[in-house]
Amino acid sequence: MNKNIQTFIGCDREYKDASIILFGAPFDGTVSYRPGARFGSSAVRSESYGIETYSPYQDKDLCDIEVYDGGDLELPFGNTEHALSVIENYCRRLIKDKKVPVMVGGEHLVTLGTVRALVDEYPDLHVIHMDAHTDLRDHYLGEKLSHACVMKRLWEILGDKRIFQFGIRSGEKHEFEFAEKHLFIRKFDFSGLEELLPRLSGKPVYLSLDLDVLDPSVLGGTGTPEAGGVTFKELLGALLKMKDLVMVGADVCELAPHYDPSGVSTAVACKLLREILLLIGG
Amino acid sequence: MNKNIQTFIGCDREYKDASIILFGAPFDGTVSYRPGARFGSSAVRSESYGIETYSPYQDKDLCDIEVYDGGDLELPFGNTEHALSVIENYCRRLIKDKKVPVMVGGEHLVTLGTVRALVDEYPDLHVIHMDAHTDLRDHYLGEKLSHACVMKRLWEILGDKRIFQFGIRSGEKHEFEFAEKHLFIRKFDFSGLEELLPRLSGKPVYLSLDLDVLDPSVLGGTGTPEAGGVTFKELLGALLKMKDLVMVGADVCELAPHYDPSGVSTAVACKLLREILLLIGG
Amino acid sequence: MNKNIQTFIGCDREYKDASIILFGAPFDGTVSYRPGARFGSSAVRSESYGIETYSPYQDKDLCDIEVYDGGDLELPFGNTEHALSVIENYCRRLIKDKKVPVMVGGEHLVTLGTVRALVDEYPDLHVIHMDAHTDLRDHYLGEKLSHACVMKRLWEILGDKRIFQFGIRSGEKHEFEFAEKHLFIRKFDFSGLEELLPRLSGKPVYLSLDLDVLDPSVLGGTGTPEAGGVTFKELLGALLKMKDLVMVGADVCELAPHYDPSGVSTAVACKLLREILLLIGG
Amino acid sequence: MNKNIQTFIGCDREYKDASIILFGAPFDGTVSYRPGARFGSSAVRSESYGIETYSPYQDKDLCDIEVYDGGDLELPFGNTEHALSVIENYCRRLIKDKKVPVMVGGEHLVTLGTVRALVDEYPDLHVIHMDAHTDLRDHYLGEKLSHACVMKRLWEILGDKRIFQFGIRSGEKHEFEFAEKHLFIRKFDFSGLEELLPRLSGKPVYLSLDLDVLDPSVLGGTGTPEAGGVTFKELLGALLKMKDLVMVGADVCELAPHYDPSGVSTAVACKLLREILLLIGG
Amino acid sequence: MNKNIQTFIGCDREYKDASIILFGAPFDGTVSYRPGARFGSSAVRSESYGIETYSPYQDKDLCDIEVYDGGDLELPFGNTEHALSVIENYCRRLIKDKKVPVMVGGEHLVTLGTVRALVDEYPDLHVIHMDAHTDLRDHYLGEKLSHACVMKRLWEILGDKRIFQFGIRSGEKHEFEFAEKHLFIRKFDFSGLEELLPRLSGKPVYLSLDLDVLDPSVLGGTGTPEAGGVTFKELLGALLKMKDLVMVGADVCELAPHYDPSGVSTAVACKLLREILLLIGG
Amino acid sequence: MNKNIQTFIGCDREYKDASIILFGAPFDGTVSYRPGARFGSSAVRSESYGIETYSPYQDKDLCDIEVYDGGDLELPFGNTEHALSVIENYCRRLIKDKKVPVMVGGEHLVTLGTVRALVDEYPDLHVIHMDAHTDLRDHYLGEKLSHACVMKRLWEILGDKRIFQFGIRSGEKHEFEFAEKHLFIRKFDFSGLEELLPRLSGKPVYLSLDLDVLDPSVLGGTGTPEAGGVTFKELLGALLKMKDLVMVGADVCELAPHYDPSGVSTAVACKLLREILLLIGG
Repeated sequence: MNKNIQTFIGCDREYKDASIILFGAPFDGTVSYRPGARFGSSAVRSESYGIETYSPYQDKDLCDIEVYDGGDLELPFGNTEHALSVIENYCRRLIKDKKVPVMVGGEHLVTLGTVRALVDEYPDLHVIHMDAHTDLRDHYLGEKLSHACVMKRLWEILGDKRIFQFGIRSGEKHEFEFAEKHLFIRKFDFSGLEELLPRLSGKPVYLSLDLDVLDPSVLGGTGTPEAGGVTFKELLGALLKMKDLVMVGADVCELAPHYDPSGVSTAVACKLLREILLLIGG
Repeated sequence: MNKNIQTFIGCDREYKDASIILFGAPFDGTVSYRPGARFGSSAVRSESYGIETYSPYQDKDLCDIEVYDGGDLELPFGNTEHALSVIENYCRRLIKDKKVPVMVGGEHLVTLGTVRALVDEYPDLHVIHMDAHTDLRDHYLGEKLSHACVMKRLWEILGDKRIFQFGIRSGEKHEFEFAEKHLFIRKFDFSGLEELLPRLSGKPVYLSLDLDVLDPSVLGGTGTPEAGGVTFKELLGALLKMKDLVMVGADVCELAPHYDPSGVSTAVACKLLREILLLIGG
Repeated sequence: MNKNIQTFIGCDREYKDASIILFGAPFDGTVSYRPGARFGSSAVRSESYGIETYSPYQDKDLCDIEVYDGGDLELPFGNTEHALSVIENYCRRLIKDKKVPVMVGGEHLVTLGTVRALVDEYPDLHVIHMDAHTDLRDHYLGEKLSHACVMKRLWEILGDKRIFQFGIRSGEKHEFEFAEKHLFIRKFDFSGLEELLPRLSGKPVYLSLDLDVLDPSVLGGTGTPEAGGVTFKELLGALLKMKDLVMVGADVCELAPHYDPSGVSTAVACKLLREILLLIGG
Repeated sequence: MNKNIQTFIGCDREYKDASIILFGAPFDGTVSYRPGARFGSSAVRSESYGIETYSPYQDKDLCDIEVYDGGDLELPFGNTEHALSVIENYCRRLIKDKKVPVMVGGEHLVTLGTVRALVDEYPDLHVIHMDAHTDLRDHYLGEKLSHACVMKRLWEILGDKRIFQFGIRSGEKHEFEFAEKHLFIRKFDFSGLEELLPRLSGKPVYLSLDLDVLDPSVLGGTGTPEAGGVTFKELLGALLKMKDLVMVGADVCELAPHYDPSGVSTAVACKLLREILLLIGG
Repeated sequence: MNKNIQTFIGCDREYKDASIILFGAPFDGTVSYRPGARFGSSAVRSESYGIETYSPYQDKDLCDIEVYDGGDLELPFGNTEHALSVIENYCRRLIKDKKVPVMVGGEHLVTLGTVRALVDEYPDLHVIHMDAHTDLRDHYLGEKLSHACVMKRLWEILGDKRIFQFGIRSGEKHEFEFAEKHLFIRKFDFSGLEELLPRLSGKPVYLSLDLDVLDPSVLGGTGTPEAGGVTFKELLGALLKMKDLVMVGADVCELAPHYDPSGVSTAVACKLLREILLLIGG
Repeated sequence: MNKNIQTFIGCDREYKDASIILFGAPFDGTVSYRPGARFGSSAVRSESYGIETYSPYQDKDLCDIEVYDGGDLELPFGNTEHALSVIENYCRRLIKDKKVPVMVGGEHLVTLGTVRALVDEYPDLHVIHMDAHTDLRDHYLGEKLSHACVMKRLWEILGDKRIFQFGIRSGEKHEFEFAEKHLFIRKFDFSGLEELLPRLSGKPVYLSLDLDVLDPSVLGGTGTPEAGGVTFKELLGALLKMKDLVMVGADVCELAPHYDPSGVSTAVACKLLREILLLIGG
């Protein structure tokens, strides 16, 4: 009998049997430049059938790990705090049920929802943040809950030296200065990642991947494309290095598929999501 | 709890409770000009959330009728007969379970699958065919199973004066001559439909709607757009006139959403599908 | 010397000399389906150079009336009430300076900002509302400030029988019932407009034009395209009939130009805006 | 053996056997707004395989008339007069060989090339001009050879009351005044065409069809889309009325296919070209 | 006199004078994900005029070698075996006439047609296969003739260790295992190519280039884009290394130009085809 | 009060206070392949709000230097020499006022306008030319003023060994030979740039950046995309090396934004323009 269930490829376990819960957070209400990240999670799900479940990079298969795809959360537009609460509450339930949350955005602000939930369980939470932008503004046109401020909000929760930024190439001068002082920041690429890993060993790590860390040639379907990014192979290489970390959650954000009519951006996001799921669940 | 089931809006009954079964037939293997109708059914499903379940035209609501959305059939590419068999067999099961099949294409050849199944149950089956093209070629580049030949194949099953064509404006001269002789044909629009209805009263009717009957200004996302078609209001008006027919099945074909980046074609198809479901189920 | 000022074509008066102030409200924070209306006002401005300043319909020329194009307001994303306040305050200043505001959206909720400002000056304000959607929901996913609720919010301010809806073809059943009871509603087209005009004679009228009242074949670049709309000539005809009304403000909303790569939607919006400006200022 | 010859569908006679010569003039060097009409003729040729050679409107078939498709002229960019000379000279040769030229633009200025050639052979030449724009500027930013001036240039050659304009809805006020005085002009539609035909009976007529006479909903792939145009059926109806005229040449201009990713504009142009060829050659 | 012949740039010899025959195989009937490769060959031909005939990489010019562009084969849709036979038979004729076939797809299955023809003439045929995908499935949804199985079918003809795969990064686990055992496979890039060349020296070699071996950033216009591919310079470098091989045929497949509205994918394919033609014919 | 002035981000000084004058030259009248570069300068201006004014590469901020954005020149289409004169005259005025001109094209021929003006003030002018194409044809289809000839025209003014070409990978053989003899040419990349810089030290240098020097994967929105180009990081690296040169003018040409619906090409151009402005003004 044919089915009417739609999941990311290979993620067809039942909730109760799954160790990882994949879900979408289709919110882009604070995007300042080009909206559309709300379509990211559903695009990733429907286009995932263009890739395989098997990864020749990790020699693992999605069919061999336990992932439940919970679909998309229903998030209101026009009320940012409410949307974040929905994410946070969903995430708290997953944590209670001993599941690892893997969220597909949506814009980057959604990370605040998952981190709020995770930090209670993991007070020592560390965040690896891959992005083109610092996201360290204190407010944007007066708003504190903006995708341009999400890392500042996370820092307020986590404190100094708990956020590790890579690939950053855009921000105001004072944001870079703040990052140098209070975070770990690596401009332009992933240099220094390898040296960092021993420090994170055994600690609870959350991976927040803003897809615009990639060069826009690789992924143009995003709200704020920023030239000078990393290649797919560089990003994949960085992810594979993290295979021994204790990853307690992850997100993949800022895919805005409408801006890339070729579908390539979505295909790239699908493949990265597969690798992250295999990294956590394999 | 959020869900991972994707259906056409408002079509969320269980199979056993439903009187209408909606399903997709994502096949476009014989398309001669521009392929892509395989994406029609999934586009209709995911974009249906841009319309309402309530129709102000019929003053009815999808939430008040019983429709199960069975998702898409899994059809092989490269083997036309096999794909048709899958459709036919699925349809036979629905008929056995006393369900009315409503299929979303895919290309127009898929109609052959449903009609093959229906004609056993309803030997007196009549077909209302809305289309820009006659589809009455005997073969196309040697192939008998082609979307350009589907009405010829149906005629071979149903015989003379059982197919009623409307909106036709493209074909070879001999196709028009064949239609005049063996079918009912109305070129360019829906004139004559009203007079026809009494003749069809009480008879089992199958509606086959090739969306390219619409003018390409209304629906450009189709494989073979043909200028000079009907407007949305003309088509909707024609459909509403059929409300007293005994409709034992229907299909909506030839939406190729990639050719219309505005999404308008899909939105048009969604609304027509809603009206057809309400026509049958209301 | 070349210039760096960008205005809608022919709208190059100084603020102090102008009787009409054109401005953009680039906000789409509550859009539920496809965002992008934030780009409407700037697209209208830059693409206006594809049309002429002279209207053969009204035999009038934008160069002969006094319009100042004030550019776009700076509106925060993620805080709906704040955005509305900026619009309202700007509008209050225009009213104080005896200017007629003509706003280009942005999504339809921005109308709430201008109407809040106008109703103090014109307690007897009447609103002509052209739209595909009723916009009469009480809330949308819990939010009262949503583009799906804007007419309900206006009704709360203006009271019964002050809002006149045309072209409506989408909504929930209870919205249509509410409209029948508390507003004037004309489904599908502009029938009844002519008869209505004498009742509005001499009264302060605000025109709110949601561009999705047009059929998506005419204007596909909008957030929620809804088949079955009016043609350009029908809409233009309706507008021209209003030439003797006392129009104290107007808006043109919901152009989302990215969804129409042909640029036709923007060209349509430009021409309608020209005609509205000439209607008010001529 | 497969072939490497590309022609408009059904136009595969040899030059010597043909009575009509179809050719492309891929020039858009004076376009003021959006260039791209240079791609019109090749798009029409390659996409013509989506339509049939048989017309159910005229009950005629392209295979039954004699048309040679001469391909595209090689026209320089950056030298307008030179490009016009190439067109004119090619056309003179066709006239000498007793062939009827049917040109596919390119922008509208190319009409000046064919008319220059035809007027020597037919001093009494009359022009039927279908367009959204008057094209009666004396110069555009100082240039006399501009697509915005082509009808003024034709008037200088042909004199008063020899040009008959239909569908016009854009221009400067003085252009409309000039047209009223020196040409026949019908704003907005084809009213008056029927009455005009007896006056043109037996006279040599040139048909110049600027495709933007169509509403942009029908044909958005053009340099300067102008809302409020005619429908396809209105245009086709007007063409079919001309079947008894002595048509000594024709052109179809201003298709800019890149602006319409759906391909619908090109499909519309193909069908109109088929009908014009059948009108002349049938 | 202008011409109506359309060839790839610089490939304008007569059949009898040519040593290389270029032809198109516009077939995509077994494509499982996104169809459209049928438009590849005609796009390559018409867009080739954006590049030069001279290669600064090889210091050779297409004008100095003898290539006849035979246009596109006429292939039926819906009958895979028939389409393959047409390709095979055409190819047999070329071989009989001592011509080297260079085919532009179409989907990758078309390679089976040329190899079937070549293997009779060259029983010792070796195949260099550049691709993102293993294409080594035994069947796909039950079909043996699928683009996902083409290399398995070739292996059945050629036997062990005659196929050399490069750039592979997608497949099921068992496909990689099969490749390790029965073929030469190099995952991800062209490492090992240089070492391989001496082994192929003097042997008849067929080059099958599936363009999706390129990273989708370079060529997004393909049916199944797969992130992590090679750059243009890496691919070109690999091709140039093969200059001393005895190349008895080649193909370039899987360009689906509609998915890349920028035209860049087609431009990339044109340049690669030029280099391959110069490699063989220079 | 909101404003109606549109400038490149951060370029909001008054003319009199500025040391650098940014202006647009929206001309593409001689483009041989795909026109549309006329839209480059306005796209760069409106999309510049997607990047920051601060450069982490140079640790400088546009807000700290003095740039006036003079908007776009009004250039006629169809008269190449006239367009060049407008550019030249504007540039002469800037030089007289001691301003450094930074021009955004438009097609590459516009460089001839600025260089004509600059060479009188700086007889020893040297040009660094980054491009995919040699642009050294003597004429193109008979026209000397063509974008394919602009470097030949510059050479006629400047003489031997004053033009330094980088990244070149397309041209006719004789163009490469001419370049080797009369210019400095570096094929494919920026090798040799570093060694060159001492020779240019203290000399007046003009930088002419044809954006198609970038690989089309990075910037596809250009008239003649040519595979095999440099990456963004390579180009940025080359620019940053020039920080000690005496740059008396610069241009950024051949962005044709319509060909890249993702907007990435424009975003790339914006960032490069920011870096060039900071290089000159910082």
